[in-house]
Amino acid sequence: MASRVVTPALLLLLFSIFITFSPALCLKQHPLDPLTPSEFIHIKAIIHKAFPAQNLTFQYVGLDEPEKYTVLSWQSKSTTNTKSPPPPRGALVVTRLNKQTHEIIVDLSTRSIVSSKVHNGANGLPVLTLDEQTYANELPFKHEPFIKSIRKRGLDISQVVCSGFSVGWFGEAKSRRTLKINCFYTNETVNLYVRPVEGIAFVVDLDEMEIIKYTDRFIVPVPKGEGTEYQASKQKPPFGPWLRGAPVVQSQEEGFSLEGHTIRWANWVFHLGFDVRTGTIISLASIYDLEKHKYRRVLYRGFVSELFVPYMNPTEDWYFKTFFDCGEFGFGQSTVSLEPLTDCPVNAKFMDAYYAGQDGTPVKISNAFCIFERHAGNILWRHTEVTIPNKVITEVRPEVTLVVRMVAVVGNYDYIIDWVFKPSGSIKLEVGLTGVLETEGVKYTKTDEIEEEVYGTLVADNTIAVNHDHFLTYHLDLDVDGEANSFVKNKMVTKRVKDPKIPRKSYWTVESETAKTELDAKLHLGLKPSDLVVVNPNKRTKPGNPIGYRLIPGSVAGPLLLEDDYPQIRGAFTKYNLWVTPYNKSEKWAGGQYVDQSRGDDTLATWSLRNREIENKDIVLWYTIGFHHAPCQEDFPMMPTLSGGFELRPTNFFESSPVLKVRTVSPKHVPLPNCTTKN
Amino acid sequence: MASRVVTPALLLLLFSIFITFSPALCLKQHPLDPLTPSEFIHIKAIIHKAFPAQNLTFQYVGLDEPEKYTVLSWQSKSTTNTKSPPPPRGALVVTRLNKQTHEIIVDLSTRSIVSSKVHNGANGLPVLTLDEQTYANELPFKHEPFIKSIRKRGLDISQVVCSGFSVGWFGEAKSRRTLKINCFYTNETVNLYVRPVEGIAFVVDLDEMEIIKYTDRFIVPVPKGEGTEYQASKQKPPFGPWLRGAPVVQSQEEGFSLEGHTIRWANWVFHLGFDVRTGTIISLASIYDLEKHKYRRVLYRGFVSELFVPYMNPTEDWYFKTFFDCGEFGFGQSTVSLEPLTDCPVNAKFMDAYYAGQDGTPVKISNAFCIFERHAGNILWRHTEVTIPNKVITEVRPEVTLVVRMVAVVGNYDYIIDWVFKPSGSIKLEVGLTGVLETEGVKYTKTDEIEEEVYGTLVADNTIAVNHDHFLTYHLDLDVDGEANSFVKNKMVTKRVKDPKIPRKSYWTVESETAKTELDAKLHLGLKPSDLVVVNPNKRTKPGNPIGYRLIPGSVAGPLLLEDDYPQIRGAFTKYNLWVTPYNKSEKWAGGQYVDQSRGDDTLATWSLRNREIENKDIVLWYTIGFHHAPCQEDFPMMPTLSGGFELRPTNFFESSPVLKVRTVSPKHVPLPNCTTKN
Repeated sequence: MASRVVTPALLLLLFSIFITFSPALCLKQHPLDPLTPSEFIHIKAIIHKAFPAQNLTFQYVGLDEPEKYTVLSWQSKSTTNTKSPPPPRGALVVTRLNKQTHEIIVDLSTRSIVSSKVHNGANGLPVLTLDEQTYANELPFKHEPFIKSIRKRGLDISQVVCSGFSVGWFGEAKSRRTLKINCFYTNETVNLYVRPVEGIAFVVDLDEMEIIKYTDRFIVPVPKGEGTEYQASKQKPPFGPWLRGAPVVQSQEEGFSLEGHTIRWANWVFHLGFDVRTGTIISLASIYDLEKHKYRRVLYRGFVSELFVPYMNPTEDWYFKTFFDCGEFGFGQSTVSLEPLTDCPVNAKFMDAYYAGQDGTPVKISNAFCIFERHAGNILWRHTEVTIPNKVITEVRPEVTLVVRMVAVVGNYDYIIDWVFKPSGSIKLEVGLTGVLETEGVKYTKTDEIEEEVYGTLVADNTIAVNHDHFLTYHLDLDVDGEANSFVKNKMVTKRVKDPKIPRKSYWTVESETAKTELDAKLHLGLKPSDLVVVNPNKRTKPGNPIGYRLIPGSVAGPLLLEDDYPQIRGAFTKYNLWVTPYNKSEKWAGGQYVDQSRGDDTLATWSLRNREIENKDIVLWYTIGFHHAPCQEDFPMMPTLSGGFELRPTNFFESSPVLKVRTVSPKHVPLPNCTTKN
Repeated sequence: MASRVVTPALLLLLFSIFITFSPALCLKQHPLDPLTPSEFIHIKAIIHKAFPAQNLTFQYVGLDEPEKYTVLSWQSKSTTNTKSPPPPRGALVVTRLNKQTHEIIVDLSTRSIVSSKVHNGANGLPVLTLDEQTYANELPFKHEPFIKSIRKRGLDISQVVCSGFSVGWFGEAKSRRTLKINCFYTNETVNLYVRPVEGIAFVVDLDEMEIIKYTDRFIVPVPKGEGTEYQASKQKPPFGPWLRGAPVVQSQEEGFSLEGHTIRWANWVFHLGFDVRTGTIISLASIYDLEKHKYRRVLYRGFVSELFVPYMNPTEDWYFKTFFDCGEFGFGQSTVSLEPLTDCPVNAKFMDAYYAGQDGTPVKISNAFCIFERHAGNILWRHTEVTIPNKVITEVRPEVTLVVRMVAVVGNYDYIIDWVFKPSGSIKLEVGLTGVLETEGVKYTKTDEIEEEVYGTLVADNTIAVNHDHFLTYHLDLDVDGEANSFVKNKMVTKRVKDPKIPRKSYWTVESETAKTELDAKLHLGLKPSDLVVVNPNKRTKPGNPIGYRLIPGSVAGPLLLEDDYPQIRGAFTKYNLWVTPYNKSEKWAGGQYVDQSRGDDTLATWSLRNREIENKDIVLWYTIGFHHAPCQEDFPMMPTLSGGFELRPTNFFESSPVLKVRTVSPKHVPLPNCTTKN
C-alpha cells in the first residue's frame, strides 16, 4: 500500500495549487466530481481542528452530493450559461474515535463542520481501512503462540503472510469491532490463497488493535506450492497456448473527449465519478437525439451498490466468510492500477482516482480507470436484400462501443467492472470474475479418500476450492427523458384464437402492468416472460408509445441461504433480482450505510417494506447479477475470467433507430510491412 | 440470385480440375468437407442419368456423412499415417419429380446410386429452393386480377415486389405443395418489408408453378416510404452518430492456419463445414492439453439444427406465419456474402461455400464465412496481489479469441451466427438478430386511435411491427474426451447446519444427478440452480473429478403457444430449453427431415418419447436460444443487433487452468503519424 501514498512534496504542490486556484478554474468543477487531493487535505485539517485527537481514524471520506434537483438545475443553467457557478462542495466523513463512529458533514466552501453525530455501533460499523487491515495482519508476527504453531508445522515464519476477514454477524447481542485473521504460506509461490495454514485463527480488536483470541486447533498439510505460481517469470516450459497480440498503433487519436470527469463520445455524454466505497459512478448519462436536436436524459446515476459473497463452508473456521465487498472492504478502495496494453488495449486513456487514507491523507490510485473504444468486429446493424429482382443490396454498419473499466481486487478475487456504451442507445453492464479462489487445506489428495463432507471441489492435492456466490447489486437511478418515471412489466400472455375461421389456436400478446408501489415491482426473474421497462408516463412518441428503457437481464441466480440465516438477513437485498424504490438520497447502499457486523435493519429489503408509491415518481432500479460458483480445476491456480452482465436498451425512447444514419469516419490505413519510421 | 450462379466457363474449369485431380491431392480431402463444385456436377450427371426427366428439381444436395466411427477411425489413422485415404464420398440428394419427393443416396467413388426411395409427402416436404421461390414471386405479375388490385390502390405495378412464405400445417388432412405470396411496395425505398400491400394474398402450387388462389379482401394504406430507406447513399442530413473505425493494419498475418476446411488456432483445431440447410457446421473440435501433450476431443459436431420463428398475429393473412428457417428455407441457402471491413474486421480471412441450385448446378456464395481473431480489449485472467508486505504483483493476460462467422438472411431478418473459440477452452455460441421487422399495414397512425386488437407495436404511421419469437435450436454432439459421455445436473441444494456450535444456519452444496434416460435430461432452465455438465464417466482427473464440459446458458425463453396448437406441435422441440438424446446419425434436424408442411411426427420431441438410455453413451445435447420479440420503434426501419448466446466451458476437463502459461507473441508496433509509406 505504501507505494500509493501521496508524498509530502506532492501534497505541498497540491495545496499550493488549491490556494492559487483562480475562480475561473473553480467554475469548471462539476458538482459530482469526486473529492480532489486538495479537498481531502482541507477535510483532514477541518476534522483535526474539530476533533484534536491522536487516535482518530478516517473510515470513509466521500463527496456529500448536492441534492439531485440542485445538480439538475446547475446542469441546465450551465449549458446555457457557462459561468454558472457549481453548488457548494461538501463531504461526508465517517471517523472512528474512542470506539465510536462519527458521521460528519463538512462544508468545503465555508471550511466548516455542518453536522456531526455519533452512530450507534450496534447496528453496523464503517468500512474497514486498508491501513488497519495491514496493521492487524502484522499482529500475529509478535504473538509468541502463533510463532510456535508455525514452528510446530515445520513452516518458515518468514514465508507466512496473514490476511484479515470481516467477521459478519451471527446473532450476537453485542460485539466489539473485530477482524478475523487467517494465515497463508508463500514459500515457492506468491499465490498465498491456495496455501492456507489451517487450524490457526485470530480475532483482532480493531479499536484496540490487539489480538483478543488465538486458537490453534488442528493441523492439516499446507497444500503444496508447486503448480500454483502465476507470475510469467516463474513459469517453466512447455508454454502455451500462443496468442498474437493486437497490432499496436501508436499515436492513435481517441474518438472521445475527456473534459474533467465528463466524457463525450459518439452520441453519449456522461460523468465518470469515483467513490472509495464503490469505485465507478456513472452520472448524468444523456444521449443525443438527432431528430430532436438535443441530448435526452437516460441515467442520473449508476454504480455497484453492494457485492455480497457468502462462502458455503459452515465449519468453525469458515462459517463467518460472508463478505460484503462494498460496505466492508470498500470496492473503490480495492480498485487497482490498470496495466496499459494488458488490462486495457493500446487505444485506452487512463484516469487516476484518489481517496483518503486512514489518517485523512489523499492516496492516489494511478490508472484507476481506463476508457477505450472497442472494435470487437461486431455488427451494429446489417441487411442484405435479395428479393428485389436483379438487385442485391447489402448495407452493413460495424459496431464501435465505448468501455469504461475499473478492476477491484478484494483479496483473492479480481472483479472487472465494465460500463459499455453503444451508439444504439444501449448501456451494457458487464462483470468479469477472475483472480484466485479461496481454498481450504484438507488431508485429502483424491476424491475417493473423502470421508467427511467437504464444501467445494478438490482442485489439487490437499486443496478444496470452496463453493460460494457472488451477488453484485447495481443502483440504477434511471431518469428516462426526465425524473418522473414508472416501472412497467410488459407481460407476454398466451391467448386463445377465438375466430372459428382461423385454424390456428393460440398466440401471445403483451399486457402491460404498471407497478404502483414497491411491492408490485420486486420480482424473481425468469419465471414469467416479460419485458421490464422504465417508462416516462408523461411523454409519448409520435405514434403514442410510452418512452422507455428496457432492462435485458443476463443469466440469473438468486440466494440459496435460508431466509432467517444471519448472512441472508444482512444480504436480504438479494432476495429479488429486481427492486424498484422511489429516489431517496439516503438510500444508496443496498446493504445499509454501515455494513460491517450489520444486522440487516438498514437494507433495501427493509426500506421497501414501507411499500412506497413508485408510479410516475423519480425511481431507482436495483438489479442483482448473481453467480453460484462451484469451482472446477480450471479455476486453479488462477481463474479464467467468467463473465456476466445485463443491458439497458432504449424501447420507444427514440422515434426510430438512432443508428440508421450512423457514419464511420474512415479509419487510418496503416501499411505494413512497407512502413518505415522516421527515427 | 443471378449473380451467384456459377458461369458455364467456370463450370468447365472446375470440371477439368476435377478430372485432372491427382490422387495425392485427393488424399487431402477431409471426410467431412462439404461437397465441392465438381462433386455437385457429378451428382447432377448421375441423377439425370438415372432420372432422365425434364421437370426434376434438386431440393437438397448435401454430403452423406460417413458413419461417425469411420470418421474417427480415419482421423486417428491420418494423424499417424498421412497417406491414410479418406472414406468414400457420398451425397444425400432430395429431388422433386412428378409431385413426389425422392430421397437418393449417391456414391461418388463409384458414381452410382446406392439407394432411392419415394418419401411420403403427407409427412412433410423438402426445403424450398431459391429458384422456385423466385419463379413463384414472379407469378403475380402475369395475373390480371392482381394488376387490377394494384391499380385500384393507386400503386405503380413496376414498384411492387412479391415474396413467398411457407404455409405451415394447420390440421389439413391432405395438402398440395404450396407457397403463400404477399406483396410489397418499393416506391421511394428498398425497404420492402415495411411497406406491405395488405388485403392481397396468393397461394401458389409449387409443383404446378401456378396460382391456385387469389384474394383481394380489403384495402388499408400502404405505410409511407419516408424514413424507411436504409441505404447510406439515400440518407439526408443530419448524420450521426459519428464513429471512428478501427485503424486498418494492412498485411497483417493471421494467428490461425487454414488447411482445406481445417482451422488451427492457439490450442484449438476444428473442421469448418457447410450445408445448404444449416450453414456453419463445426466438427471434430479438439483442444491441445499442454500437460498431456496431446489434443483432446471436445465436440464431434455442432450446428443450428432448426430456427423456429412463429409470428403472433392470428388473423387470416398472418396466422400461418410460423417459419422454420432451416427446414423450410435452408439456413445455409440463405447465407449471404460477407462484406470485408464491415461484416468482418480487417484481419478476417474469408471462405466461399457452394450448394446445388434447383437444377443441380453448383452455386457459389463468395465470402460465406469469415474467420478472424478478436481483440476486444477483454482480460483472459488477471490478479493483483497486495497482501504480501512491500510487494505489489500484477499479472494480466489479455484475451484473444477466434471467431467463425456466417450471416443468413431469411427474407427480412439477418442472423449473425458466431462460433467463438477461447484459449481457456470455452466455446461461445453467439447469435445476433438484425435486419428488418415484418410489419402489417393498418389504418392507424396513433395508438389512441386503435379500436381493434393489434398484434404488435405501432412503430410508424400505418405500421404495426408484429410480435414474434425466435428459437434457435443447436445440435451439439459433444464428445468430451471420447464418445461415451453422461449428462449430469450438479444441483445446488440448500442444507441446514447441524453443528449446534455454529451460529450460521445454512449453506448450499452440490448434489450430482446423472440422467439415465432422455426423460431425466430434458429441462426448463432457470427453475432450479444447477451446473449442467457433460462428463466422461470413464475418465477422471488426478484428484478424481469427472472430466467434463459445462453448458452456461444465456437469457432463456420458452414457447408460449398452446401445446396442442399446430405450429407448436411442429415446433415441439422448443418445449424444453435442453434435451439430451443418444447419438443417432438420422437425428440431425430437430424439426424433422421434411419440415415444410410437416405434422410434428418426426421431431426431437417425438424421438425422445422412446426415452432411450443416455448414460455413458455417445450423447447429443440440444439447446435452444429463445427470444420473445415485442418490437419497439428503435427496431424500425432497421433493427440494431440484439444478441444472445451461451457458453460451453471446460469443467474439470483440464488438471488446472489451460491458460496459466499462455504466451502472447509481441504485437507489431505500428508508428503513427510518424510513418511514411514506401509508395
